[in-house]
Amino acid sequence: MTTALKLSGAQKAMLGKALIVSGLSRDEREALMSCATAVRYQIHDTLFHEHGEARYFYCVLSGYVRLYRLGNDNREADIRICEPGESFGECLLLDGNGYNYSAQAMEQSMLARFDLDKVRALLDERPRIGIAIMRALSQHLLSTIDCLASDRMRTAPQRVASYLLTHSTQQGAAASLRLPFQKSLLARKLGLAPEALSRAFSALREAGVTVSGRLIEINNLDALKGV
Amino acid sequence: MTTALKLSGAQKAMLGKALIVSGLSRDEREALMSCATAVRYQIHDTLFHEHGEARYFYCVLSGYVRLYRLGNDNREADIRICEPGESFGECLLLDGNGYNYSAQAMEQSMLARFDLDKVRALLDERPRIGIAIMRALSQHLLSTIDCLASDRMRTAPQRVASYLLTHSTQQGAAASLRLPFQKSLLARKLGLAPEALSRAFSALREAGVTVSGRLIEINNLDALKGV
Repeated sequence: MTTALKLSGAQKAMLGKALIVSGLSRDEREALMSCATAVRYQIHDTLFHEHGEARYFYCVLSGYVRLYRLGNDNREADIRICEPGESFGECLLLDGNGYNYSAQAMEQSMLARFDLDKVRALLDERPRIGIAIMRALSQHLLSTIDCLASDRMRTAPQRVASYLLTHSTQQGAAASLRLPFQKSLLARKLGLAPEALSRAFSALREAGVTVSGRLIEINNLDALKGV
Repeated sequence: MTTALKLSGAQKAMLGKALIVSGLSRDEREALMSCATAVRYQIHDTLFHEHGEARYFYCVLSGYVRLYRLGNDNREADIRICEPGESFGECLLLDGNGYNYSAQAMEQSMLARFDLDKVRALLDERPRIGIAIMRALSQHLLSTIDCLASDRMRTAPQRVASYLLTHSTQQGAAASLRLPFQKSLLARKLGLAPEALSRAFSALREAGVTVSGRLIEINNLDALKGV
């Protein structure tokens, strides 16, 4: 059982950096934040199940949350890994009786949980808040499109190469990266089975990629770009 | 070169059924529609290219438009097939300097084309219109999630079976469906190469699925559900 607490000053400050409140006046921010409480989850806790009654949307303050679908044969499809500052479930504000996916904490995580009914009432009063939510929805749509296009167009090593190229710190022709989460979460994010991720890393060894725990070193960026 | 014309009464009536204007008052509808013109495209015309300057978003009045990404090696990834009543590109209202994908007419198509700058100015004046756009964005996000989850979780025959089950007309234990577009477009929609779609239809013959041009007959719905 999770306990819902009022957002602390520090939590409000974290939430203030999230896309969901960007572009809002101080007053509108406060009004939107007043619809939220802080909830903490332990690793592998379920936030909600697909088809469950939708009462909240969320913004990650710390930790990681994965969104996934369950197929007929109990196969899971990861949809998104939500990082600190990212929100999910806002699409339920207008329609939707139930959640369209399940959500699970992948580390000990702190979230701001927004009461959908309260935000709906707020939208009637202050429709400009809808513009901030539109911005978050647009961003989620674009990143889901990125993910879909990447799945359809790229091989596993190409997906990993693309992640490394956009997330690593360059030093001359080389670069390095410390994964913010476990490799198993990277696999989920890229839509790969853990073994497929391992094979992709092996394939990338030729392009000068070495992996040691969460530390990834790239000694030839040009080769990686050519994968 | 396309010609932009004022929307006719019949075109406004078609647009009136689209999700993008749902929930708006008559007055707000008129205001939003006043930002649009009608444009006609021939089959295989390009509406815009990925990275091109974003000046418009669109709503399909008739025909079909495919959205796609181009990879480094000139491989294309289809992202969405937009049908009459569906809009695309609204996510560019808030950010975005360029289009995030290319768009191509897949039949002779009539579209309502909304001027992004005009709609932005309208949102400042009448923020409630943002709520209607939020609804369309939420819907696009959910259908893109559906597509991503289906790709990650389902085999090609399962994707085709799912499409048939949700789009066919049932008559007892049997059902039938006339595809609204060519099979090549169905393949794109499901993220399959044309040969993979043919193989999937062959595999579904065991579940009583027969294909004759655009007409698809299913003589055992239960078998199809079990694929």
